[in-house]
Amino acid sequence: MIVCPPERITRAQQAVAAAGLDAMLVTPGADLAYLTGYRATALERLTCLVVAAAGDPLVVVPVLERPAALTSPITALGLEVSAWGETDDPYALVAGHVRARGATAPRIAVADHMWTVTSQALCAAAGVPAPELAGPILRELRVRKSAQEVAALRTAGAAIDAVHRQVPAMLRAGRTETDVGRDIADAIIAAGHVQVDFTIVGSGPNSASPHHELSDRLIGAGEPVVVDIGGTTPEGYCSDSTRTYFVGADPDEKFSTFYAVLRQAQAAACDAVRPGATCEEIDAVARDIITTAGYGDQFIHRTGHGIGMEVHEDPYIVSGNTLPLEPGMAFSIEPGIYFADRYGARIEDILVCTETGGERLNDTDRDLVIIPS
Amino acid sequence: MIVCPPERITRAQQAVAAAGLDAMLVTPGADLAYLTGYRATALERLTCLVVAAAGDPLVVVPVLERPAALTSPITALGLEVSAWGETDDPYALVAGHVRARGATAPRIAVADHMWTVTSQALCAAAGVPAPELAGPILRELRVRKSAQEVAALRTAGAAIDAVHRQVPAMLRAGRTETDVGRDIADAIIAAGHVQVDFTIVGSGPNSASPHHELSDRLIGAGEPVVVDIGGTTPEGYCSDSTRTYFVGADPDEKFSTFYAVLRQAQAAACDAVRPGATCEEIDAVARDIITTAGYGDQFIHRTGHGIGMEVHEDPYIVSGNTLPLEPGMAFSIEPGIYFADRYGARIEDILVCTETGGERLNDTDRDLVIIPS
Repeated sequence: MIVCPPERITRAQQAVAAAGLDAMLVTPGADLAYLTGYRATALERLTCLVVAAAGDPLVVVPVLERPAALTSPITALGLEVSAWGETDDPYALVAGHVRARGATAPRIAVADHMWTVTSQALCAAAGVPAPELAGPILRELRVRKSAQEVAALRTAGAAIDAVHRQVPAMLRAGRTETDVGRDIADAIIAAGHVQVDFTIVGSGPNSASPHHELSDRLIGAGEPVVVDIGGTTPEGYCSDSTRTYFVGADPDEKFSTFYAVLRQAQAAACDAVRPGATCEEIDAVARDIITTAGYGDQFIHRTGHGIGMEVHEDPYIVSGNTLPLEPGMAFSIEPGIYFADRYGARIEDILVCTETGGERLNDTDRDLVIIPS
Repeated sequence: MIVCPPERITRAQQAVAAAGLDAMLVTPGADLAYLTGYRATALERLTCLVVAAAGDPLVVVPVLERPAALTSPITALGLEVSAWGETDDPYALVAGHVRARGATAPRIAVADHMWTVTSQALCAAAGVPAPELAGPILRELRVRKSAQEVAALRTAGAAIDAVHRQVPAMLRAGRTETDVGRDIADAIIAAGHVQVDFTIVGSGPNSASPHHELSDRLIGAGEPVVVDIGGTTPEGYCSDSTRTYFVGADPDEKFSTFYAVLRQAQAAACDAVRPGATCEEIDAVARDIITTAGYGDQFIHRTGHGIGMEVHEDPYIVSGNTLPLEPGMAFSIEPGIYFADRYGARIEDILVCTETGGERLNDTDRDLVIIPS
């Protein structure tokens, strides 16, 4: 069983009170896993953590999931578990727990990713017209990773690096992206993840599609292959790293030229990471280099995203985000250059902001890996 | 590419108009996959299908996902794809498309599982205080499976049956639930699924926890093992079947006695399936047999759930659900009897209601499978 630090829920309760809320409601997902260690699946039967400003937090669960809840980390936290039967009204049960904690006309916040049908039912039961969003509270709690979390992300980074080191042996002309993706998925598990989150193998023109996944396309000689892969470790933390490979021949001059720019931009953005630099400043470091070299229109996405118990979470490294980096913030730096329908490239590392700069959690070769045919 | 019948979105548009709505908004998930064949991942960047009462439907996507969207089945449907850049406001873009279709003070419905943060942002952009729920419209469209969908569920059923036939060879005293679960996951993929949805291997006392998953517990001789497994096929349809195995010895008399009752209850509920029977009547058939035999308090969950592009969807076979079955409705019949902390059993088949009765889509032995040690 993974131990969930009890101060997380204590800090959450303090934040609920400080925000003038009566209660925060959290259904299964990364927020619930962060606060309680309970990694339940979001299903139609309501499971809901109630963190009220006053009174003890508790978890409402379907009666058939009570045994699973009681063997989860929430037991170690000493949280009350309140079970509802198949013909009970779980929304009324939650509303009753909120009222029992002193809120008659409650201000309630819900986790951002709660299903709309669920937040509407909870509000109706509690007699509030619409919920507020708990995003700001949970973001503030989750955005600076603890030493324990950074260690978990470091483990995840090493695991996905171990997979990337095997990729050259998997890539060759004549195999399909799906073939390679299957090998990568097996390697992701073998490297110590418990779940494959995504396997992007974009060959030839598909390398110009940043969120391409897999296809039955045969990889050809003389083509780049963008490999962007990640999984979740037993501790519940995510890996995510991209490398661009070139199969069967040296790249043409155009590709070599823009890849060198991309390599420089990614390195410069990584080097710019330090406490106090804003997210948009980091984005601009990479973007300015790429734009100055004439590829600005080909860099069609932000520079990066935060990572932790979700593959994408705050902070986002994007123009307009004035959030200053602080030690413990973890995020990707992954500029890309894409020529639609022809080819593209991306280089991605996960970094953690430290007291003095940035620590890269990925360490495989960032130069273009050319694989002989 | 999987062909998505174009009449689905036509019928959705008719239903939007008939409900007096201006537009229905659908973010990634089973509803989007059903309507368009586009199986995008729900992420922080907005992807949203707009089905307005008037005007052509369209899909709003992040610019970096445009290539993936254009190679998806939505192209075959001829849907317009409207892309937004990283620093655009996608919610305003959607609201603009809704207004362009003639709705100035729009009534908007959103997919039930849309994130609350997303539905709130869309409502704010469109100037509506709170969304209505599109659940009733989408449920009505999805609940009666077409012949093509029934065929896909039949394929899924045969695939998971192939896995259950291999389970006796995987189960033996001294292996952990996790060991067995890993073998089952491999077999689920090998049997023709593209995704493992769940692998419940509940041995000994864990067999009394209906939503137990896996643990490092060693399976012991003389113990029942509840194996409830499922995956998703390339067509996007789910399998789900449970069998109870007994390892290394014959069960004690108590277990044999209640298992016989369970076997009878499951068979009777399956036999009761026919058009016009209500969901709660089917539940009652299983429950009455189990209750009469004295195990009512040990049957702690509903009798079943609908299945299709989601493992759990309408119709739910539960007390209080007066929905009459109709041909094409697909659902599980899965009563269970559980003695907390000791042991339990469950038998689950997927059925489709036909013109004259019910067709079982699972066909492995429902008698207790005793595995010699």
